[in-house]
Amino acid sequence: MALATLALSSKYASSFAGDVRRLEGQSCMLEAPRVVTIRQGARNINRSVQIMNVASVPSTESGSNTKSYVRVGVLGASGYTGSEIVRLLALHPIFQVTLMTADRKAGQSLSSVFPHLLAQELPDLIAINDADFSKVDGVFCCLPHGTTQEIIAALPTNLKVVDLSADFRLRDVNEYEEWYHGPHRAPHLQKEAVYGLTELRRDKIQSARLVANPGCYPTSVQLPLVPLLENQLIEKDGIIIDAKSGVSGAGRSAKEANLYTEIAEGLHSYGVTNHRHVPEIEQGLTEAAGSKVTVSFTPHLIPMSRGMQSTIYVQMKSGITVDDLHWHLSDRYKNEEFVRILPKGAVPHTHHVRGSNYCFVSVFKDRIPGRAIILSVIDNLVKGASGQALQNFNLMVGVKEDCGLLQQPLFP
Amino acid sequence: MALATLALSSKYASSFAGDVRRLEGQSCMLEAPRVVTIRQGARNINRSVQIMNVASVPSTESGSNTKSYVRVGVLGASGYTGSEIVRLLALHPIFQVTLMTADRKAGQSLSSVFPHLLAQELPDLIAINDADFSKVDGVFCCLPHGTTQEIIAALPTNLKVVDLSADFRLRDVNEYEEWYHGPHRAPHLQKEAVYGLTELRRDKIQSARLVANPGCYPTSVQLPLVPLLENQLIEKDGIIIDAKSGVSGAGRSAKEANLYTEIAEGLHSYGVTNHRHVPEIEQGLTEAAGSKVTVSFTPHLIPMSRGMQSTIYVQMKSGITVDDLHWHLSDRYKNEEFVRILPKGAVPHTHHVRGSNYCFVSVFKDRIPGRAIILSVIDNLVKGASGQALQNFNLMVGVKEDCGLLQQPLFP
Amino acid sequence: MALATLALSSKYASSFAGDVRRLEGQSCMLEAPRVVTIRQGARNINRSVQIMNVASVPSTESGSNTKSYVRVGVLGASGYTGSEIVRLLALHPIFQVTLMTADRKAGQSLSSVFPHLLAQELPDLIAINDADFSKVDGVFCCLPHGTTQEIIAALPTNLKVVDLSADFRLRDVNEYEEWYHGPHRAPHLQKEAVYGLTELRRDKIQSARLVANPGCYPTSVQLPLVPLLENQLIEKDGIIIDAKSGVSGAGRSAKEANLYTEIAEGLHSYGVTNHRHVPEIEQGLTEAAGSKVTVSFTPHLIPMSRGMQSTIYVQMKSGITVDDLHWHLSDRYKNEEFVRILPKGAVPHTHHVRGSNYCFVSVFKDRIPGRAIILSVIDNLVKGASGQALQNFNLMVGVKEDCGLLQQPLFP
Amino acid sequence: MALATLALSSKYASSFAGDVRRLEGQSCMLEAPRVVTIRQGARNINRSVQIMNVASVPSTESGSNTKSYVRVGVLGASGYTGSEIVRLLALHPIFQVTLMTADRKAGQSLSSVFPHLLAQELPDLIAINDADFSKVDGVFCCLPHGTTQEIIAALPTNLKVVDLSADFRLRDVNEYEEWYHGPHRAPHLQKEAVYGLTELRRDKIQSARLVANPGCYPTSVQLPLVPLLENQLIEKDGIIIDAKSGVSGAGRSAKEANLYTEIAEGLHSYGVTNHRHVPEIEQGLTEAAGSKVTVSFTPHLIPMSRGMQSTIYVQMKSGITVDDLHWHLSDRYKNEEFVRILPKGAVPHTHHVRGSNYCFVSVFKDRIPGRAIILSVIDNLVKGASGQALQNFNLMVGVKEDCGLLQQPLFP
Repeated sequence: MALATLALSSKYASSFAGDVRRLEGQSCMLEAPRVVTIRQGARNINRSVQIMNVASVPSTESGSNTKSYVRVGVLGASGYTGSEIVRLLALHPIFQVTLMTADRKAGQSLSSVFPHLLAQELPDLIAINDADFSKVDGVFCCLPHGTTQEIIAALPTNLKVVDLSADFRLRDVNEYEEWYHGPHRAPHLQKEAVYGLTELRRDKIQSARLVANPGCYPTSVQLPLVPLLENQLIEKDGIIIDAKSGVSGAGRSAKEANLYTEIAEGLHSYGVTNHRHVPEIEQGLTEAAGSKVTVSFTPHLIPMSRGMQSTIYVQMKSGITVDDLHWHLSDRYKNEEFVRILPKGAVPHTHHVRGSNYCFVSVFKDRIPGRAIILSVIDNLVKGASGQALQNFNLMVGVKEDCGLLQQPLFP
Repeated sequence: MALATLALSSKYASSFAGDVRRLEGQSCMLEAPRVVTIRQGARNINRSVQIMNVASVPSTESGSNTKSYVRVGVLGASGYTGSEIVRLLALHPIFQVTLMTADRKAGQSLSSVFPHLLAQELPDLIAINDADFSKVDGVFCCLPHGTTQEIIAALPTNLKVVDLSADFRLRDVNEYEEWYHGPHRAPHLQKEAVYGLTELRRDKIQSARLVANPGCYPTSVQLPLVPLLENQLIEKDGIIIDAKSGVSGAGRSAKEANLYTEIAEGLHSYGVTNHRHVPEIEQGLTEAAGSKVTVSFTPHLIPMSRGMQSTIYVQMKSGITVDDLHWHLSDRYKNEEFVRILPKGAVPHTHHVRGSNYCFVSVFKDRIPGRAIILSVIDNLVKGASGQALQNFNLMVGVKEDCGLLQQPLFP
Repeated sequence: MALATLALSSKYASSFAGDVRRLEGQSCMLEAPRVVTIRQGARNINRSVQIMNVASVPSTESGSNTKSYVRVGVLGASGYTGSEIVRLLALHPIFQVTLMTADRKAGQSLSSVFPHLLAQELPDLIAINDADFSKVDGVFCCLPHGTTQEIIAALPTNLKVVDLSADFRLRDVNEYEEWYHGPHRAPHLQKEAVYGLTELRRDKIQSARLVANPGCYPTSVQLPLVPLLENQLIEKDGIIIDAKSGVSGAGRSAKEANLYTEIAEGLHSYGVTNHRHVPEIEQGLTEAAGSKVTVSFTPHLIPMSRGMQSTIYVQMKSGITVDDLHWHLSDRYKNEEFVRILPKGAVPHTHHVRGSNYCFVSVFKDRIPGRAIILSVIDNLVKGASGQALQNFNLMVGVKEDCGLLQQPLFP
Repeated sequence: MALATLALSSKYASSFAGDVRRLEGQSCMLEAPRVVTIRQGARNINRSVQIMNVASVPSTESGSNTKSYVRVGVLGASGYTGSEIVRLLALHPIFQVTLMTADRKAGQSLSSVFPHLLAQELPDLIAINDADFSKVDGVFCCLPHGTTQEIIAALPTNLKVVDLSADFRLRDVNEYEEWYHGPHRAPHLQKEAVYGLTELRRDKIQSARLVANPGCYPTSVQLPLVPLLENQLIEKDGIIIDAKSGVSGAGRSAKEANLYTEIAEGLHSYGVTNHRHVPEIEQGLTEAAGSKVTVSFTPHLIPMSRGMQSTIYVQMKSGITVDDLHWHLSDRYKNEEFVRILPKGAVPHTHHVRGSNYCFVSVFKDRIPGRAIILSVIDNLVKGASGQALQNFNLMVGVKEDCGLLQQPLFP
């Protein structure tokens, strides 16, 4: 018969005390895939898991002390994208953080750097040179661009890697070198890397070893525009993107320009015409359109920690209406958990997706005949970075794509 | 025996399609065991039967498609505490929202009122008079004080009820009438109601039918002070509480004083000496001290949506040191998931608990000899309201206390 | 001849005592010359007589204690534009508030409604029906659109009036009725009213009796675009305006959507394609271009109390470069105190003008060939409302245009 | 004699064009002290002034090109207190900034560092070693503590100096060395320095050459407490100060802890029991009480750029009531422009004083019998720093104390 007899043990029962309690707290969400044997020991839960043929996690682990889950490393855990990965993984049923690096914070606990993560049981931070990569099945690489290339090139090739830097996003090495002002040191990996815009590249991501996680702006822009360009619904010329971002996109490094006093209660444009996300956006739109696309892209820094909106002004193809755009996007994303096309007339707020992996999109008719306005909002640290990274990693490992990602937006 | 064999169906498998997928997305966290047998260890008795009885979940289970969960109603779902309950329940493995009321929004979807909850499958809002309470096993009552009494009095008595209003917090009806300026209309329920400060009243809550969920300030104050007073470590006289709260504590109703422009970039005291949380705080401290406690309590409105800190100035008993306070609190809460006594010298930030059910506490020696400073932070909407309500409801129904509550704080 | 004889009295002497001092404190900035004779140079005619005549300030007032100033009324003083007028007038050397109305607050002091203005000596608020307009030489009308028309129509015709509502901005009554959904009740005044975009209409404003003060968005847009259109430097088609505003633009009335909790840490578009400032913008641009201009205009609500940026995307005329735009704007505004064209490459922040009457503008070359990006920032309550109103009133009365307006921006 | 003959000329007239305009803009507020002769030249205003016996400004006045005003230097102009001095001086009728130093920004214009000050005509920033102090009559010293001592010791002794650092606030050099962890390098100046809490030390300040400008917290605390202690209205024991500050108090240097993302939407205590303002507060209260006062002082960092509140809990002397405190404070400050005792029951907001030199104070009866709660708010950068510095400088030079300081608070 189809039912399980389950000694739910700790899962929903309130029976455990002491040190066990904490780990079990997490196991409340922790359930197991295809075949699971859970044994309760003195202090730890042991879970044997057999999905791992997909995830290429060693399935051996026989015996009662078997530990079976996907062991995850976070390289560069002392920044906001790193901590965000760790936050999301706290509720992931299969993945467990077993390695974290942060060179300048080596030897410290993560909770000394990010006290909000104090409740989790985590390994201490170590220097990347001290990392034992045999301890992990995959890594999230949250390092700065430039340094990332050589580090990833030096990783064992059996690891699944999601890179959150810009280093492998641009297929054309020359373009990388132009925008990032230096030679690319791992061009062979650039060829291998799969661009991880999940909803639009799911098949390739599932079989990838190295995924280049998209930038936040490119995610918010491509999700609505790629389908419209692919289907010849909008002109490829004259696309104007006025984008607005929260401050966390600038990371946690100390800069005068990002002090509270410099940001609060004011806004300004930045990177006008030369923001580094431009070539990434144009690469995606060019591929969708089938010929070179040049966009107008102006980002703005907004006094909020998280959140991003791209307000996109497009010219529709002759004969195409806003209803056509709306219908087409709705159809394209109708089965997607994380991309939601709002009903006509509804305006997305960045609040509606804060802390979550969702992207809300709406389409409006412009006053200027033949033009449309597309509004697209995400949380820049989740769908724009760590959430999409986890979404990709889920796919790469073979677990359900939304695992660990269904936390709802935090409002207010 | 301790092991479960579980056919977890397709929960983490990535094969899915169409509308089914969305539901599954949620069921990743939600799926209830089709047949549940819970074995309890030393501290608690078997709760599996209790779940089924108390929550009156159809125990049919005939056939493999049976769904078994606890059906939850949210009365007053259009306010911030209501929406917060719904947000938290999205990840709860056992509870499902089957009824939501909001008189002025009756007929609307919750997502039209709170678009951030758009991704959940929820019933529409209805007027409370149209509610069919046979459809629910328990309710969270998020209605304004005053109206709450009669509504709860009229509910079927088999329902578990957690009331988030102030109506049943004060055991002394006269005190209620003095502070709330009107007669109490359900004094018999006031007798029945259990005050739901979870960590300090766990046993009574487990067997309660009606729980009066504590106020936010009283939660942040009592968690550290009650153990210290009970153990005669601090004087009951001269307790000074300087409290700071985010604006969401004031609810979602439109008031000039709570406009963005009136709040941002400024702070002020309010309710000086006459805030309605005073009698609740004094009630709890008086009981702990064994004789009447009168506190100085001054709340401040801070330009942030969520978060609360109570900075508490106390006189230690003769011979008692700050180390004694720290040791005692650490010991008292050493097995608690949600109350964390920080290492000496560490300062809690409201950021560290935002969006989560945690309370972080630290203790400092004051410059004035014999005095100590206690810092206590919570998220006023979670541990200060809806999170603690869910924690209580978990206990009342017999599931693990932290179910649905292990989402980590959102930072930045 | 050109000189005044002025008894400067004790203005800066530090010898003072008692109640006198306070009044003197203010008079440091406010004291009016007892007898004033002002001589004008080339550009303007003699205004000294005009001040006295037009403003009908009793010029006699025999004896050396005569006080001579312009008596000002503020209609609708309980809103943000009203209080902003009063704030600015505190430092005005010639104008003095002698009448303030606020129907719902009649009988109260202004400081009970706006405690930040407590230090000023001001008359109490009265109902507009109780106002004695013989007490004032001019009024700022800060009332809601719609009600404004009849009130202004009923004022004594010798009063100078600056109206901050939208009621007299649109020259075409039909357009008013279309956008404001009702008949216009004073079409004869609409004909008389001069549109008060100061730098572009100075001559007409100087001789006006009724000035329609521009909206905030239209001010930020027209200051850079009108000269460019008038001089055929940009195309009139395809002008895309992505505007961002602080929340004070929505006024002080209590609305759920403008609560702190709804605004902080998030942003969203609003009034997409149908914001009421559209016809005002198009009216000004159409006049400048010489033929009908239709713009794309999308405002965004930003979590800040004050500040406004219009990011404007334009197509340059063939052969025109960004340098041409920059040179032309710099030349056009080179003698203006309040409109500043930034050096090439400099990005204006709304911070740079907060609390002040300045408009900072910069021009950038777009990535799309032939296009330019214009950034224009103002404080929506000052240059976007009350500051420009005072600037206009100064002109109408014949005092120096920047009187009372040289307070520097407040940063941080 | 006491009167001036003044060619008011440009002051309120709209007659000037071109470069003149800007300087004249400022002269709108510019009026002259005891004896003034102002002559208008081609491009510049020349003002001859005779107050300068006090300020030791050369009283030449011979010839028509005489320039007479007080020449002010700002040392350390690239920080927030420096820029705030410059902002305030823009409207000062007598003082003119003729020297600004900022070592790391030497060679730049101030507007490149603080674009909000772009409209002012100012000298470029230079290194302090390049400063020609014969060009100034006085300086505001806005340098970090520690380095300040030697710099001030090396200044020409004819200069009036207001020091905004902590270096000369503590009369007891040993205490300085204990709290600032190093030897004091100018103990002779520490003896000379007058502590510049203006309202309480006016007489000494008027004749001082070197004023140690008080810290922000000490200002907010001492203004209400010193009169109460001096008059034996409150006990000197058990004074508990819970203080809250905006972030600008931390200055403009880049620190991770002060990033927008670390501050926004959260609060926390800091410097618990060991903030460096403690000895300054205790010094002032001890002197007032006549015997050693030890306070409990806990500051909190609030998500706002400006503003400070001290919530002060005191024990009243036997027989004293809150009405006594209120009456006494009201009487003590009844003639002060900048210290305002609010009516009973009124709550001061930091908003009410933002951007201004005001201090608002109110007094409440505590729930605990015999205790009172005092609320005191200031703008930490104005009355808490640069505004009070200017107030002191006005006194030292002999101009009216509130000159340049009557700008009203900016709200919202």
